[in-house]
Amino acid sequence: MNTKPHTIVIIGAGNVATQLGLALKKAKYPILQVLSKRKASASKLGIILNAEHTSSYSKLNLNADFYIIAVSDDAISEVAKKLNLDKQIIVHTSGSVSLDVLKNSSTNIGVFYPLQTFSKERKANFRNIPICYEANNSKTHQRLLLLARSISRTVKSINSDQRKSIHLAAVFACNFTNHFYSIAEDILKSNNMSLDILKPLIEETTNKIKENSPSDMQTGPAIRDDKKTVIKHIGMLTDKDQKQAYKLISKLILNTKKG
Amino acid sequence: MNTKPHTIVIIGAGNVATQLGLALKKAKYPILQVLSKRKASASKLGIILNAEHTSSYSKLNLNADFYIIAVSDDAISEVAKKLNLDKQIIVHTSGSVSLDVLKNSSTNIGVFYPLQTFSKERKANFRNIPICYEANNSKTHQRLLLLARSISRTVKSINSDQRKSIHLAAVFACNFTNHFYSIAEDILKSNNMSLDILKPLIEETTNKIKENSPSDMQTGPAIRDDKKTVIKHIGMLTDKDQKQAYKLISKLILNTKKG
Repeated sequence: MNTKPHTIVIIGAGNVATQLGLALKKAKYPILQVLSKRKASASKLGIILNAEHTSSYSKLNLNADFYIIAVSDDAISEVAKKLNLDKQIIVHTSGSVSLDVLKNSSTNIGVFYPLQTFSKERKANFRNIPICYEANNSKTHQRLLLLARSISRTVKSINSDQRKSIHLAAVFACNFTNHFYSIAEDILKSNNMSLDILKPLIEETTNKIKENSPSDMQTGPAIRDDKKTVIKHIGMLTDKDQKQAYKLISKLILNTKKG
Repeated sequence: MNTKPHTIVIIGAGNVATQLGLALKKAKYPILQVLSKRKASASKLGIILNAEHTSSYSKLNLNADFYIIAVSDDAISEVAKKLNLDKQIIVHTSGSVSLDVLKNSSTNIGVFYPLQTFSKERKANFRNIPICYEANNSKTHQRLLLLARSISRTVKSINSDQRKSIHLAAVFACNFTNHFYSIAEDILKSNNMSLDILKPLIEETTNKIKENSPSDMQTGPAIRDDKKTVIKHIGMLTDKDQKQAYKLISKLILNTKKG
């Protein structure tokens, strides 16, 4: 096996590009170049990763082993059209976009999806982030596996359909739950309290599901079919969509009992 | 101050009665009696707490200092009607029921609300559970404060309106989020995957809000107004109420951006 480390070009300069770039740099992969259409972002990330930077596809470095497209979902196909490589491996990092979008960009293509919620302010610890990967042939599959293992403890071979399901599940388990924390914070603030009082409860709710199925851990007025409290709560909410959400989710919870 | 420990009667034998009884026993309060209309439950909890047990109000021990009503919300007023004490302190443990419900049961009444999600299978660590308490006079207030402090690190004086808001907020932050973990698990199972793959993400989602407002931490397709992914996800869901919930919560998230 080649002992020279594989080299990388990163396309994109947002949260995922930054955090993934940092993890790969830490794992001793030379980042040859950062390409982003936003010149200032490309320059900034280039400095962080000790890499060249450019905002022009005509200046793309063609000598890397891996090309990692870490841009917004909608922009991936546009980027793919601009890439016409030979055997270099091209991957995108999206949970919801097919592998196929890259099929005209190289003979070796894949997906390298870090299953995490990235925020600019927070440094991600990639060791704990599952990497879901996929490739169009076994050699690329093997090389992505090694790349993934060098930065994460949890690496899963996942096909496009599974990946889309993971992404949908993650929206419920992460994005939607975070919004419910926001709603809880708003309710408490309007009564001169802080979200802090709920934090032990939030922690226990997630601790419970470490070893149990959440469907066995459901508590609260909806699962008890405690109509009085449900009606009282809906009356306390002032936003009509929040009222509707309370009703609907209570119905969904009650249905799991009947089902 | 009286150095003899206060004595306690517990009315109810469910999750809250059991966990709270265990915490009080551990804090060296003698539990004189457990009263529950379900005879077998009363007996079982009586043995656990080293206390007498009865299912009849005519046999209620009238010599305790505290009477803790830990029954379902709907049953509290019924229990209250059966109690006619003099100066002994009566409290209920509900998040959503007014203090007033106890006003004809004793001259000293209060609420003693442990803010947690209790399940039979899990032993609660009361040191980490906020106790929200309330009383109808300052002497009772003081005695409930001491009782609460003896079992928990976090003790808050909370009025009835605030307590109802906390309870409503907790439904969003705990019950509804738990149901979304269930939905996520179902989606993954139907594609031969387990919820385990999402656990690092769920953990990070709650870690983020330890030091940040959840409204600043929102990620996902809805906040990015990524209509393509939102439409794709709604199409993937088969349950009509789940589809509706996805739409509604995405709208709520997007509104926070516009607002």
